[in-house]
Amino acid sequence: MGSSFGTLFRISTWGESHGGSVGVVIDGCPPGLPLSAEDIQAELDRRKPGQSDITTPRKEPDSVEILSGVHDGKTLGTPIAMNVRNKDHRPSAYSEMKTAYRPSHADFTYDQKYGRRMAEGGGRSSARETIGRVAAGAVASKILKLGGGVQIVAYVESIEDIQMPASEGPIQREQVEATPVRCPDLATAERMISRIKEVRSEGDSIGGLVTCEVYGLPTGLGEPVFDRLEADLAKAMLSLPATKGFEVGSGFAGTRLKGSEHNDIFEAREGEIRTRTNNAGGVLGGISNGETLRFRVAFKPTATIIQEQDTVTQAGEPTKLMGKGRHDPCVLPRAVPIVEAMTALVLMDHWMRDHAQNHLFDFNPESSNS
Amino acid sequence: MGSSFGTLFRISTWGESHGGSVGVVIDGCPPGLPLSAEDIQAELDRRKPGQSDITTPRKEPDSVEILSGVHDGKTLGTPIAMNVRNKDHRPSAYSEMKTAYRPSHADFTYDQKYGRRMAEGGGRSSARETIGRVAAGAVASKILKLGGGVQIVAYVESIEDIQMPASEGPIQREQVEATPVRCPDLATAERMISRIKEVRSEGDSIGGLVTCEVYGLPTGLGEPVFDRLEADLAKAMLSLPATKGFEVGSGFAGTRLKGSEHNDIFEAREGEIRTRTNNAGGVLGGISNGETLRFRVAFKPTATIIQEQDTVTQAGEPTKLMGKGRHDPCVLPRAVPIVEAMTALVLMDHWMRDHAQNHLFDFNPESSNS
Amino acid sequence: MGSSFGTLFRISTWGESHGGSVGVVIDGCPPGLPLSAEDIQAELDRRKPGQSDITTPRKEPDSVEILSGVHDGKTLGTPIAMNVRNKDHRPSAYSEMKTAYRPSHADFTYDQKYGRRMAEGGGRSSARETIGRVAAGAVASKILKLGGGVQIVAYVESIEDIQMPASEGPIQREQVEATPVRCPDLATAERMISRIKEVRSEGDSIGGLVTCEVYGLPTGLGEPVFDRLEADLAKAMLSLPATKGFEVGSGFAGTRLKGSEHNDIFEAREGEIRTRTNNAGGVLGGISNGETLRFRVAFKPTATIIQEQDTVTQAGEPTKLMGKGRHDPCVLPRAVPIVEAMTALVLMDHWMRDHAQNHLFDFNPESSNS
Amino acid sequence: MGSSFGTLFRISTWGESHGGSVGVVIDGCPPGLPLSAEDIQAELDRRKPGQSDITTPRKEPDSVEILSGVHDGKTLGTPIAMNVRNKDHRPSAYSEMKTAYRPSHADFTYDQKYGRRMAEGGGRSSARETIGRVAAGAVASKILKLGGGVQIVAYVESIEDIQMPASEGPIQREQVEATPVRCPDLATAERMISRIKEVRSEGDSIGGLVTCEVYGLPTGLGEPVFDRLEADLAKAMLSLPATKGFEVGSGFAGTRLKGSEHNDIFEAREGEIRTRTNNAGGVLGGISNGETLRFRVAFKPTATIIQEQDTVTQAGEPTKLMGKGRHDPCVLPRAVPIVEAMTALVLMDHWMRDHAQNHLFDFNPESSNS
Repeated sequence: MGSSFGTLFRISTWGESHGGSVGVVIDGCPPGLPLSAEDIQAELDRRKPGQSDITTPRKEPDSVEILSGVHDGKTLGTPIAMNVRNKDHRPSAYSEMKTAYRPSHADFTYDQKYGRRMAEGGGRSSARETIGRVAAGAVASKILKLGGGVQIVAYVESIEDIQMPASEGPIQREQVEATPVRCPDLATAERMISRIKEVRSEGDSIGGLVTCEVYGLPTGLGEPVFDRLEADLAKAMLSLPATKGFEVGSGFAGTRLKGSEHNDIFEAREGEIRTRTNNAGGVLGGISNGETLRFRVAFKPTATIIQEQDTVTQAGEPTKLMGKGRHDPCVLPRAVPIVEAMTALVLMDHWMRDHAQNHLFDFNPESSNS
Repeated sequence: MGSSFGTLFRISTWGESHGGSVGVVIDGCPPGLPLSAEDIQAELDRRKPGQSDITTPRKEPDSVEILSGVHDGKTLGTPIAMNVRNKDHRPSAYSEMKTAYRPSHADFTYDQKYGRRMAEGGGRSSARETIGRVAAGAVASKILKLGGGVQIVAYVESIEDIQMPASEGPIQREQVEATPVRCPDLATAERMISRIKEVRSEGDSIGGLVTCEVYGLPTGLGEPVFDRLEADLAKAMLSLPATKGFEVGSGFAGTRLKGSEHNDIFEAREGEIRTRTNNAGGVLGGISNGETLRFRVAFKPTATIIQEQDTVTQAGEPTKLMGKGRHDPCVLPRAVPIVEAMTALVLMDHWMRDHAQNHLFDFNPESSNS
Repeated sequence: MGSSFGTLFRISTWGESHGGSVGVVIDGCPPGLPLSAEDIQAELDRRKPGQSDITTPRKEPDSVEILSGVHDGKTLGTPIAMNVRNKDHRPSAYSEMKTAYRPSHADFTYDQKYGRRMAEGGGRSSARETIGRVAAGAVASKILKLGGGVQIVAYVESIEDIQMPASEGPIQREQVEATPVRCPDLATAERMISRIKEVRSEGDSIGGLVTCEVYGLPTGLGEPVFDRLEADLAKAMLSLPATKGFEVGSGFAGTRLKGSEHNDIFEAREGEIRTRTNNAGGVLGGISNGETLRFRVAFKPTATIIQEQDTVTQAGEPTKLMGKGRHDPCVLPRAVPIVEAMTALVLMDHWMRDHAQNHLFDFNPESSNS
Repeated sequence: MGSSFGTLFRISTWGESHGGSVGVVIDGCPPGLPLSAEDIQAELDRRKPGQSDITTPRKEPDSVEILSGVHDGKTLGTPIAMNVRNKDHRPSAYSEMKTAYRPSHADFTYDQKYGRRMAEGGGRSSARETIGRVAAGAVASKILKLGGGVQIVAYVESIEDIQMPASEGPIQREQVEATPVRCPDLATAERMISRIKEVRSEGDSIGGLVTCEVYGLPTGLGEPVFDRLEADLAKAMLSLPATKGFEVGSGFAGTRLKGSEHNDIFEAREGEIRTRTNNAGGVLGGISNGETLRFRVAFKPTATIIQEQDTVTQAGEPTKLMGKGRHDPCVLPRAVPIVEAMTALVLMDHWMRDHAQNHLFDFNPESSNS
């Protein structure tokens, strides 16, 4: 269990890498949304392997088929199931992994938990399972944009110790997509690309940070006390493969400020109550405050490396293992659309929840005879 | 909505600061657990205000009453409701806050979301709501310890820029409780206490980091792909007031390592498969791997400061506000039992979920006629 | 587990008969609803024991205390906890029941499931647990009436073989409340009262049928395919103590009609699409169709009788047991407000769910640049 | 929303009649279960159209494809997605239904709720959506049988006014499958078949009752107070198309008995505590008591009839409509495997829930140092 996400805009995913297919069903999508396979495919193409010379060479078209829930080009309000067939299986590349545990992979823990696992390509623990998330996220994103004018933009802020300079003003998706590394600062992007290639040539891997910003989000999203907006975002991000950390607004650095430095002063701007600074990162008390929502996600270096490593067999015998599968030396560029997708899913769900409770009735006791 | 947490060991909390009471009901607690109000009170006393000279002087006995679910000293398997009356109300201290928004507090967002709020002491957004969490967590902790031998220990690792040295080996709760600041390194604790007093004398506030470690956790807890153990922990921590970040294992620092440096090599130790290092922080692929579970939580400096600050009224008019309520200059010491409580709730829920799916039947098709 | 109900307007109940208290917390109540303890008490008084000479003589004031979620006479949008203290304990009346199983009571199954139980008065399995349901239902009812003009009226249609004649037109609550048996037909009510007194004098008990009708319900409530409106109503009713059956519209009798007799023909009336007959009972395909929602609930005769019965002890030894606790010879009259409460909870939850998905955005792709 | 069912053994279904496909994903299936497409297909074949001369002539092979979650012939513990393609589309048969509302169908309410619908064959409201339920139920049934020795047998007890005599002793599936009408009493079955053919020749339709019995169910399943076993069964049954009623044990007839007649006396039989009679139908206080679980479901006559009926258009204009689609004159025979599937899903989920809470730890406080 654990393959469903969301309360009202609820998704359930399935599929193993090197199994028959991966997919997702969305339950709760509002009816009337114009939707086609192209809307989904566009996002899957940003996630798919083999899209540039700094990602894994595995060739997967990742073509999506919409199985249900859309008719005459619009959503019906019924479940939307979407399926992607796996194509480029090379199970032979994984024969050793059936018995030896790859370091920092989930082979060992899946065996411990379920008493069995699909060894090829990591099975369910492969990042291929995120295809369903991206497909569902594409639907949520379209609703948020079309219905609410909300824009979600994620980008690679740092790789290893290469950090882009602080941006001024909103980032556009075009800037992010300008290079295959998805860092909107071109000079930094070039250095990142070189570093990735260098590391790959050494058979090694690197990690980094993805930042996500949301523009145009209204106030009021987030359900205290447990389902605060940042709590559900943190869960969404830490549910992604290879993530090790999450921070919102001032985050870890904010712990070194005094309250008098950290507090965001309220002021009126153009008839609206706004904050002068945004250390909060767009949330106060777990609820969006109308400022840019801003958070950062830490991705560890890819566990698969093309170097011989010590490990043990299922029986606990020492052995050595040499990475062979096709892999990404750095997952960050392909993580960008996945972070956006999870963000869209969280926001969509919270929008619906807020709407249900707080925009249902306008009580007018005077006009009533109760 | 949003005041429930957990799937099988599920809690629902209620209550506003300065309202009648705060409390919690647990649904799903296993029957037969020896439980008394004293078990709960011991943890509430670690959380309560006025416990030392570095916390808020608000006087609240925080006496818990068990309303249901316990009979003859043992849990019945039925819902356990627990209630704590609010005593030390001083609503007059909050009269200005009814119309002016306190910077970096949730006054503004509650108004935006619900169209109303209880202004006194922050109402539902006050950290008083965590009383219910601590009460429920005390039950979960006792089960984990008694049934599974699991020990959860959180401590204050840093305050502002004062950081304790890396510990060697497990931390004992006695070390944590040795000083009111709950940093197990005595020399660091003294510096922290001085710093808190100094900041308080300036009417200012500071934040810091709480680290939590879990010893004795078995393998197999965590439900991929969304309800990974670290994902639910991240959500639990970011659902706490004043938190801005979460990291597990190597966390943000790990993004600067290469894969060959970061990977945790498997080896056999005393007949068990273990890892040589623990950059993972005890989870692989979202499932506990038998190593120490280790994560860190960032708390911002307390928003309430005793200094005059610019702000606006509900109508958007500029005004000034001077903090008056009794408050903690640094929430970290009292956050320790709260972090432990949330950790216990997550672990208990995951233990039950894993047990339900993976330890239900041992299929033996040969002996069956199906 | 199992003590929570609803998705968005979600309640969690607690409490044992003869324990400290019984209560409920509602999570998800819309803010701004005028609400006082009197609103709740009025419904609890309709449910409470000792209200007439045909109910149990147990004396319980069942005074409700609102612990949270209401401020200045209006709901805050935060959890509303409500608690009722148990007063009239007579545990001595139950001493034999600690070891001997009362026939057709839950003593045996609670022991089997939990390995223990609170013997006094049935503990959690007592109908006293419905107090929390009635309290929460009172809130839901008030919202439905004030916000949506929806009226829920349940009544006793039959007791044993005494059946009221078919009513013409809507039933008013005043008619129902005119006699203590809560049958709106006065002549039938008198016969029912006599029968109940007669049966009580024999130390025996009887059951019957409660019918519930909902007037003014709009179209569109119900979430196919599993959470159909009638499915959630069926669950709600079968979750009540002593219920053995549920039918909606034509129900069991409808299975003897031909399709050509059973189908409800559509027609236009006063500018609205309506049906000529209402065999459907107000739902088509799981969704309300704008006609009167009508269903019926079967209650078995009370299990407690004042006659000596054979049974066994916990150890399986044959013994005899004589009913002693104060009890209702017929639960129907007091079941009426409980059926109404559960109906209100189901409708409220479905209203919120429908609102969230189907009244969120009005997509206008032309005006968008997506 | 509303297309998911269950808490731990949780299914989500998708698909419209005459859309691309219908399917289901199961989250929470225990690992290690031997499972093949044949296991699923066997149950789908019992449900599929065109299986005999008393069902609809629509030709659908209903071939299932397992998309995920099974490897080397066994379940992995990961989500099991299963998909069935729709083949025999004849959208032209439904052209009139795009604008005119079929009486007692869900066309009108889907339009009211979602503002749109897929008119062909009823879209999502078609009984084709139950394919996913049957596929998932086949998995649950196999686990219950293999892991717990539980046997679920449903059968047609009555059609219109043709009622089979009371059975003595357990019904075997072979008896049920002996005739296409699935009534285990052969003489009654013949009369039912004749009646169905007769009604079909008149272009009319009939309904009836399905009874379901579960043998070998242990004590302890059911989660009071809301998720009683019979409450979840009632919901499951009323969530099926065309159902109008549910009763367990003595049901509606039991309301005419006195308590002294209705109570089931406990006795010891072969070392176990059993009841002499089974008016309870296998549940006491919402928990299984070890006796045969027995309940009955009322199905209305099929709404589609081949007769001209009055109705209105979407605009409310009077019109006439003549049924044209291929349909079942009586849904009962094909409902049998569907009722069994839903029963299996409820029992499986409850087994897991009971296991999680009540069979997790055996607390032994003496041996602990807590």
